[in-house]
Amino acid sequence: MSDVAAKIFEESLNKVVLVQLKGGRSVRGRLYSFDQHMNLVLEEAEDVTNTDATKKLGTIIVRGDNVVLVSPPPKR
Amino acid sequence: MSDVAAKIFEESLNKVVLVQLKGGRSVRGRLYSFDQHMNLVLEEAEDVTNTDATKKLGTIIVRGDNVVLVSPPPKR
Amino acid sequence: MSDVAAKIFEESLNKVVLVQLKGGRSVRGRLYSFDQHMNLVLEEAEDVTNTDATKKLGTIIVRGDNVVLVSPPPKR
Amino acid sequence: MSDVAAKIFEESLNKVVLVQLKGGRSVRGRLYSFDQHMNLVLEEAEDVTNTDATKKLGTIIVRGDNVVLVSPPPKR
Amino acid sequence: MSDVAAKIFEESLNKVVLVQLKGGRSVRGRLYSFDQHMNLVLEEAEDVTNTDATKKLGTIIVRGDNVVLVSPPPKR
Amino acid sequence: MSDVAAKIFEESLNKVVLVQLKGGRSVRGRLYSFDQHMNLVLEEAEDVTNTDATKKLGTIIVRGDNVVLVSPPPKR
Amino acid sequence: MSDVAAKIFEESLNKVVLVQLKGGRSVRGRLYSFDQHMNLVLEEAEDVTNTDATKKLGTIIVRGDNVVLVSPPPKR
Repeated sequence: MSDVAAKIFEESLNKVVLVQLKGGRSVRGRLYSFDQHMNLVLEEAEDVTNTDATKKLGTIIVRGDNVVLVSPPPKR
Repeated sequence: MSDVAAKIFEESLNKVVLVQLKGGRSVRGRLYSFDQHMNLVLEEAEDVTNTDATKKLGTIIVRGDNVVLVSPPPKR
Repeated sequence: MSDVAAKIFEESLNKVVLVQLKGGRSVRGRLYSFDQHMNLVLEEAEDVTNTDATKKLGTIIVRGDNVVLVSPPPKR
Repeated sequence: MSDVAAKIFEESLNKVVLVQLKGGRSVRGRLYSFDQHMNLVLEEAEDVTNTDATKKLGTIIVRGDNVVLVSPPPKR
Repeated sequence: MSDVAAKIFEESLNKVVLVQLKGGRSVRGRLYSFDQHMNLVLEEAEDVTNTDATKKLGTIIVRGDNVVLVSPPPKR
Repeated sequence: MSDVAAKIFEESLNKVVLVQLKGGRSVRGRLYSFDQHMNLVLEEAEDVTNTDATKKLGTIIVRGDNVVLVSPPPKR
Repeated sequence: MSDVAAKIFEESLNKVVLVQLKGGRSVRGRLYSFDQHMNLVLEEAEDVTNTDATKKLGTIIVRGDNVVLVSPPPKR
């Protein structure tokens, strides 16, 4: 990923991010770790695909090749 | 990407681009960063898949392998 | 791509090409740039998937791995 | 995977993890082995896609490229 | 591709081949060029997916990773 | 694959394994050979996708990139 | 592929094999050539997806990455 993307991931550590996955699912959780392939570790994660019925997942490891996009928390 | 594509991305920095993603979704936002794999950072991004119900996403990092095409703003 | 394919792309520069994409969509536009991965830049592009309702896209950058086939303009 | 992800996998050895796979299926089992591609060996695994009708699978080897996300057991 | 496959492609140059593509579509045309990735150039190509409604495509460049199988013309 | 996974494959040679494939199909057969990509050779294989209508396949070679998971026989 | 798989392909040369492809289609033909990526050349091939309506294809070149599994002829 670009240095800019890496910096945004850095600044998002310990903050809640929204991750949209291939196949239409979304998870949200506190970003605990990432690498250059966008493999992510999220804590207190929830499956928020269906916003009327979110599901608690606890800590999760997301394989980067499933990630479509990541929304860091608003920060400016 | 070709030098020409890179130049168009360069010229689009800080301008609003439309990004069409695999699976039929589209997002629009101000281009803040890109790399040679088309990993993108967009600011003030919106999901515009359904133009009757756009959704604000804030800053997003898009994983390049999901990108189908990018429309920079008209500039000529 | 083969030298022959590259030559056809060369000869198609500044001419209108039709690009069929994975997932069934088609775009048409003036070829402005290409590289060996079939990353393409098209100008005055249109989404022509539905020929009854084409959509103007302006300049677009197409990520090569979405390309199924490209039809250059008739030239012989 | 990042060192952090590897550490979480290490700590999950011999504990029950939930693995979500591409295509919507989920399996759960005791983590017996993993490698850097997320190839996993689970013992006493069950297919838990349909929580009303789980299926016992015994020991399974999961090919890493099918993994979407892994939930280790709660540990804090 | 194997030397045998390459030889068959060689012998098919300037002859009409049928190409079946991922996603169920088929095109037919005179083979003008190929490379080791099965990137193909076909002339006087037609989309023959629907044999009741073939569509003329003219010269086309087919990206090899979409090719499922190629039928050269009968030759023995 | 990890040494542990390789060892499990070793121990499963000449025993009946269940292989779940991408796209939802399953085959079962006696494991005759494997390699590090999970390319498999199964003997006396059956398509067991529909357990009410299994189909005999004889010896089969399975291309590893289609494998989702492999269940060796119970052995402890 | 493993040496064992290669040997089975060797022994199947000039014999009729069944090839199941991604997306659910099946073709059958006399194996004329193969390489280590499972690119195959089949002669007198037929599309046998629908066993009530097989279609003759003649000689075909199958791109290996579409192959799910190959059944050589019974030989023991």
